[in-house]
Amino acid sequence: MMTPSKYKRQYYMPPVKCMKWAEKEYVDKAPIWCSVDLRDGNQALVIPMSLEQKVEFFKLLVKIGFKEIEVGFPAASETEYEFLRTLIEQNLIPEDVTIQVLTQAREHIIRKTFEAVKGAPKAIVHVYNSTSVSQREQVFKKSKEEILKIAVDGAALLKKLADETEGNFQFEYSPESFTGTEPEYALEVCNAVLDVWKPTADNKAIINLPVTVEHSMPHVYASQVEYMCDNLKYRENVIVSLHPHNDRGCGVADSEMGLLAGADRIEGTLFGNGERTGNVDIVTLGMNMYSQGVDPKIDFSDMPHICEVYEKCTGMQVYERSPYSGALVFAAFSGSHQDAIAKGMHWRENGDLEHWTVPYLPIDPTDVGRNYDADVIRINSQSGKGGVGYILETKFGLNLPPKMREAMGYAAKAVSDHKHKELHPDEIFSLFKSTFENVVEPYSINEVHFQQKDGGIVTQVTSIFRGKTVVTEAAGNGRLDAVSNALKKAYELKYTLETYQEHALEQSSTSKAIAYVGIRKPDGTLAWGAGVDPDIIRASIDALVTAINNR
Amino acid sequence: MMTPSKYKRQYYMPPVKCMKWAEKEYVDKAPIWCSVDLRDGNQALVIPMSLEQKVEFFKLLVKIGFKEIEVGFPAASETEYEFLRTLIEQNLIPEDVTIQVLTQAREHIIRKTFEAVKGAPKAIVHVYNSTSVSQREQVFKKSKEEILKIAVDGAALLKKLADETEGNFQFEYSPESFTGTEPEYALEVCNAVLDVWKPTADNKAIINLPVTVEHSMPHVYASQVEYMCDNLKYRENVIVSLHPHNDRGCGVADSEMGLLAGADRIEGTLFGNGERTGNVDIVTLGMNMYSQGVDPKIDFSDMPHICEVYEKCTGMQVYERSPYSGALVFAAFSGSHQDAIAKGMHWRENGDLEHWTVPYLPIDPTDVGRNYDADVIRINSQSGKGGVGYILETKFGLNLPPKMREAMGYAAKAVSDHKHKELHPDEIFSLFKSTFENVVEPYSINEVHFQQKDGGIVTQVTSIFRGKTVVTEAAGNGRLDAVSNALKKAYELKYTLETYQEHALEQSSTSKAIAYVGIRKPDGTLAWGAGVDPDIIRASIDALVTAINNR
Repeated sequence: MMTPSKYKRQYYMPPVKCMKWAEKEYVDKAPIWCSVDLRDGNQALVIPMSLEQKVEFFKLLVKIGFKEIEVGFPAASETEYEFLRTLIEQNLIPEDVTIQVLTQAREHIIRKTFEAVKGAPKAIVHVYNSTSVSQREQVFKKSKEEILKIAVDGAALLKKLADETEGNFQFEYSPESFTGTEPEYALEVCNAVLDVWKPTADNKAIINLPVTVEHSMPHVYASQVEYMCDNLKYRENVIVSLHPHNDRGCGVADSEMGLLAGADRIEGTLFGNGERTGNVDIVTLGMNMYSQGVDPKIDFSDMPHICEVYEKCTGMQVYERSPYSGALVFAAFSGSHQDAIAKGMHWRENGDLEHWTVPYLPIDPTDVGRNYDADVIRINSQSGKGGVGYILETKFGLNLPPKMREAMGYAAKAVSDHKHKELHPDEIFSLFKSTFENVVEPYSINEVHFQQKDGGIVTQVTSIFRGKTVVTEAAGNGRLDAVSNALKKAYELKYTLETYQEHALEQSSTSKAIAYVGIRKPDGTLAWGAGVDPDIIRASIDALVTAINNR
Repeated sequence: MMTPSKYKRQYYMPPVKCMKWAEKEYVDKAPIWCSVDLRDGNQALVIPMSLEQKVEFFKLLVKIGFKEIEVGFPAASETEYEFLRTLIEQNLIPEDVTIQVLTQAREHIIRKTFEAVKGAPKAIVHVYNSTSVSQREQVFKKSKEEILKIAVDGAALLKKLADETEGNFQFEYSPESFTGTEPEYALEVCNAVLDVWKPTADNKAIINLPVTVEHSMPHVYASQVEYMCDNLKYRENVIVSLHPHNDRGCGVADSEMGLLAGADRIEGTLFGNGERTGNVDIVTLGMNMYSQGVDPKIDFSDMPHICEVYEKCTGMQVYERSPYSGALVFAAFSGSHQDAIAKGMHWRENGDLEHWTVPYLPIDPTDVGRNYDADVIRINSQSGKGGVGYILETKFGLNLPPKMREAMGYAAKAVSDHKHKELHPDEIFSLFKSTFENVVEPYSINEVHFQQKDGGIVTQVTSIFRGKTVVTEAAGNGRLDAVSNALKKAYELKYTLETYQEHALEQSSTSKAIAYVGIRKPDGTLAWGAGVDPDIIRASIDALVTAINNR
């Protein structure tokens, strides 16, 4: 049952107005990215990754450019502990990559974490405790002072153990459930932690402000982030990090607005895997920057490969409508969209243009390893002349007259509507051939002879109709006109020859030409035919006969 | 290849600063909802819906409370035309529901649209033409004045045909690709259209501002919307509508911020189906309001049924992480999350609380027809005592001592980690029984006799170990203590009896009790056992023997 009165807003506004971020329009530089796929992402899988899958995923993350990777909560599970030891002992961590481990602010867990991370070339130890009103009341049953003490004690133990343990350590603190915490209190806790760590320019501390659960609109979160950025101590030596989840469907907006509000770093996952509705999707964040001309510093150029490894390791599927990566996100089925895309692509080819501005395609799909034919122009009953024409042109080298594209569009739409299925390019081409190319029923032509006479052309045409051969002579302005007149005469046909177009067929192995003929019927509508032959004259005659057969 | 310099920002800022919306924190009332599932949603399916599927989907939309439903682009396809005629001729449109039809601003299409919609009790005729810089340049190759004329001519024809056609018509105009249009120009076009229509309080016009392609951050769109709202003529008689798509993953933020900026109406779809990355998801928008105490005016209480009809009709799947509706969005696998949820649920039961504030659950899953056992607490190798304890308690009525929960948590984690699978509640229960309940190997007890003596208890215990029966006598403070002492004496066992707890088993048909016993071993760790028997004394003895067997 739906009972709205059961709910209230669970977030808290900063004590002062923090809206400077809204003066900025867009994210103009890539943040520090930290992948949490192997921890927060893994934790949300029905079947968590095996050691081998984690190693494969880790290698993918390194390959596409992540420099900070949270590898687990080693004190919480044998598999995560082993994975971390494998990375360290098999030297799988490149020099420019820092691994990150998560621990609660509890003594025995922190100690076990340091055991696990011993000998890592560089590591971020990420300690957290929950600070929200509801967790203080319901889970910990502790006062603000007691919760702050948990954080400070944890921070102090981190510092102590880091001094005693082999390796290079950076510290990160999260007031977990930040979005359900009063900003003034979160600030107090973070500053108390920073007072313990006393970060320097050489060893900055990370303060991470998680959207553990999304409780507010993203501009509210941005103002909370701005408040923290404005008031954190040691600010110049603090990296402000965001860790958004997506419960209200706004993880991307939280991240982007949080960056405008002063944050330096994002923790997220590929394709937004993670608890419940997921962590923020770093693919979308990065590609959003890219589509506005900003280098995301992660290489998404082989998206199909990234999707494949992701799906194999996690057992999840990349959602068909996931921005920039989903199977359907570049697809245009609608006729008017296809038409605009086709025109935009032409305009681009002809214009030598600096910037990508093709309608309905936020980016060039080939930039992420996708392709126009298979992924963009797709034909079903919603499609029209633009898409069908585009496919015949780009994939099969057929440049139909505009009005013939329309006829072909209707033919394809009818087949798709009737068969209740998508038509693949080869089916479109087959349909074109069976409907419009060299159709010889009921009329066909056996032999044609031409001769120049009185500045015009005279022809003798031997045609067949219902098994009966007829020989007719007629004159015309040109060869096609003459043949047309001969056929009209033979069978008392009524039409006007209206459109003629031809071009070489570049893609065929033998050098052939294609001719297109449109005739106008007495009722004012058009009928179409195409002819393909090495001899352009024969091609045009076949086109004419096909158009007559298609009346 | 990734080449950021190939891209530029394709949106345009309003000529004045429009940020009043940012003073508001949240959406405090439901907008007018218009479903475009049957048009924009359908247009994006690999296989568009059949007539029967459309009728079924339409009935679902009506049932859950939509009052405005865009049913198609009837001039564009036979199926859409037929569907519309079916709705009208079979009286499938309830009195309080208005259907909407889409048409381009082209004469023959507008005329065919009016033919299709003839006799509809109430209909919105939605006319559009594209106004963006890239479409003006690349697709239409027309000037601003010429594009404006297309809109005005279309608007005039709508007005004329509405007067001539049977039915009640409301008008809607979209400057399509609004997000790629200069706001001043979009305003000029919309105001020119409004000057034709001259909307009144009795027949308001709808001006729809589509995010045809998402080109900017959501706060930029909100400022564009605010600019339009501030400057549209006849504003009191104009309904400002939004139609966001999701190319940058921000369709929800666009919509919510656009509402704060003054919009009155949202066009979207269930689960965000639609072109490419989809239209905005009305489920998320509505439930976001709901989770903050605002009535969304759409009934999502039977979400599983809504998902089922949607999946059947569209052939799409609801993404597992889709907010409020996905299979995984209430799932907690992580031990600490499960623990907090279990504590939050307890706190709620005991507290008679007005508002829902359970950690990690933005809403009560039962509000949308989901349930705690199957959807929330789910056990795999990431889980711990909290989740396992919660399942044993809520589903099987077993209230384990806290430290025994921990032992049971480790047992479940190990099985899940080893088998590489999720454990279902019945498997957890089986694991509990096989590990902790009435274990009789290697030690078991055959007979026990008690007698009161000197203010204490003396017992005679007949036990079996490796096929050999032993009879021992011992005294103790209570019955269990005496039996324990007898066993220690018989086999020279070393442990301390540390924890004892018992309760009736409410769920079993015969009235039984369960006892839990924890013993501390010489190495300081604990071993656990439980016993189930109608006789509580026997249950406690079985628990003790099990704990001994589990050392």
